[in-house]
Amino acid sequence: MSHFADRLIEGIRRRRTPLCVGLDPRWELLPLDVRSRHGEGLAGKARAYDEFCCRVLDVVAPLVAVVKPQSAFFEACGAEGVRALQWVVRRARQRGLIVILDGKRNDIASTAEAYAEAAFTTFAADALTVNPYLGRDAVEPFIQQARSHGGGLFILVRTSNPGAGQFQDLMVDRQPLHCRVASAVAAWSGEHVGSSGYGDVGGVVGAVNRAELRQLREHMPQSILLVPGYGAQGGSAADTSDAFHPTGLGAVVNSSRAILYAGAADEASWEAAVERAARNSVDELARHTPAGNLVLHSIETDG
Amino acid sequence: MSHFADRLIEGIRRRRTPLCVGLDPRWELLPLDVRSRHGEGLAGKARAYDEFCCRVLDVVAPLVAVVKPQSAFFEACGAEGVRALQWVVRRARQRGLIVILDGKRNDIASTAEAYAEAAFTTFAADALTVNPYLGRDAVEPFIQQARSHGGGLFILVRTSNPGAGQFQDLMVDRQPLHCRVASAVAAWSGEHVGSSGYGDVGGVVGAVNRAELRQLREHMPQSILLVPGYGAQGGSAADTSDAFHPTGLGAVVNSSRAILYAGAADEASWEAAVERAARNSVDELARHTPAGNLVLHSIETDG
Repeated sequence: MSHFADRLIEGIRRRRTPLCVGLDPRWELLPLDVRSRHGEGLAGKARAYDEFCCRVLDVVAPLVAVVKPQSAFFEACGAEGVRALQWVVRRARQRGLIVILDGKRNDIASTAEAYAEAAFTTFAADALTVNPYLGRDAVEPFIQQARSHGGGLFILVRTSNPGAGQFQDLMVDRQPLHCRVASAVAAWSGEHVGSSGYGDVGGVVGAVNRAELRQLREHMPQSILLVPGYGAQGGSAADTSDAFHPTGLGAVVNSSRAILYAGAADEASWEAAVERAARNSVDELARHTPAGNLVLHSIETDG
Repeated sequence: MSHFADRLIEGIRRRRTPLCVGLDPRWELLPLDVRSRHGEGLAGKARAYDEFCCRVLDVVAPLVAVVKPQSAFFEACGAEGVRALQWVVRRARQRGLIVILDGKRNDIASTAEAYAEAAFTTFAADALTVNPYLGRDAVEPFIQQARSHGGGLFILVRTSNPGAGQFQDLMVDRQPLHCRVASAVAAWSGEHVGSSGYGDVGGVVGAVNRAELRQLREHMPQSILLVPGYGAQGGSAADTSDAFHPTGLGAVVNSSRAILYAGAADEASWEAAVERAARNSVDELARHTPAGNLVLHSIETDG
């Protein structure tokens, strides 16, 4: 069974981009043709989410290596929404995409085990986002099950919301709490490093502050950083550049709304707009971050 | 619309106990007659969880005011499990029980809104457990939706697992991080206090250390504390006593496995064992905590 980070790095090299497309289906933003087709109620909404995400997957699968479905939007549709999420994950994997399930799960002991089982067995995701507040023994069941499936985790370190600092930036021994979490992630990551040089436990680090990002990159030298906040959340491609190593590796940059809803809701050719937005994001990341080196490197390797 | 804390306190007074029965359906512990009836696969497992939890609800509804379904175990069965969870929540509310959905959800902005919508609209729970690591603006959508539904939240403050201290006990300005979280909970709680004197934002505080519990009770004077860790997790009834105010109010004490799996798996009369265990827990809490005063108080009030 290959190592999660090795699969991820291989995918990034093959597609020559660290871009991850976030799958955040939101009813009020869906293309009207998709909204109108599936009938009323939560079940209809869930079927619309399923159709929309699968059509997005068909568009982006040739362009990127990674997608990140956001569990919350599917859960809001109840059981039918969760069924749609299961289908979307399956379709993504069939298309060769690596799936980071964004659930920010956390609990202790056998409950953490059940969440990990849901993510890695029932949904068959490649990786899961996890909240670290409960500490090592609560994260451990997630790590164990990720490892037994050749999967990975992304632990919340520093999030991109305006109020993230309320707890994450509190000073502990002259360094912010999120640096303590980063040290823990670095240690967990270092326990199981693949041939790519990266471990299977990464960190979620918002693209909010370049100095902070640089520091966190140093704190977690062997961890892949998942960087949300690019695109609609206000971060530019350049803002993410400090999450990378000079090779252009080490980061996965997520964009959701700016790609999914690039077209107007009433546009018949919304898939063309999604494709253009994804290609633009790939270009921007190549021009303004070390990810540009992936192109050179890949051309050399391929040649 | 009545205030969440008022409904909760009224229920606790009526049943004269702060006991909450945790609904943690675990396949390997289910009574054999329930396991054998529902066929193979995740769908069969989900139906067995549904039957088991609903039969437990029928047993405990006359004895307690509150139940806490644990989302993880249902999610591990995929969409069918989530459908079972929806039924269990509905059945519990039909039986007049207050439902705390234990999901430990957390995210930012519209994603937090979607989780809150799932909890309060789709599942129609009375309250949800929430992880605070992302800070106020991430908790805000949960607070808003809870309030608009007359529901409540329980924010993780200090959990009961052995490694909880890794982050929660880190010292910030000479006090542990969890005290900072407690102060935030106290402030959120104080924004919307019911006629019972309690707010609609409570704290989750493990029954691990009596001095700590006493301190957290003081930090959150208007918050109802949800105390896990009683029963199978090792805490005794007396260990929870500092979570209460002298009136016997202010705390909800959860027990899951020690009640659910009180009978042997092959016992035909497992429901009788569940009832005995629930009654014993009610008695223990009355004898070893201020909850004993509920009996006196209620008798006076009723008289």
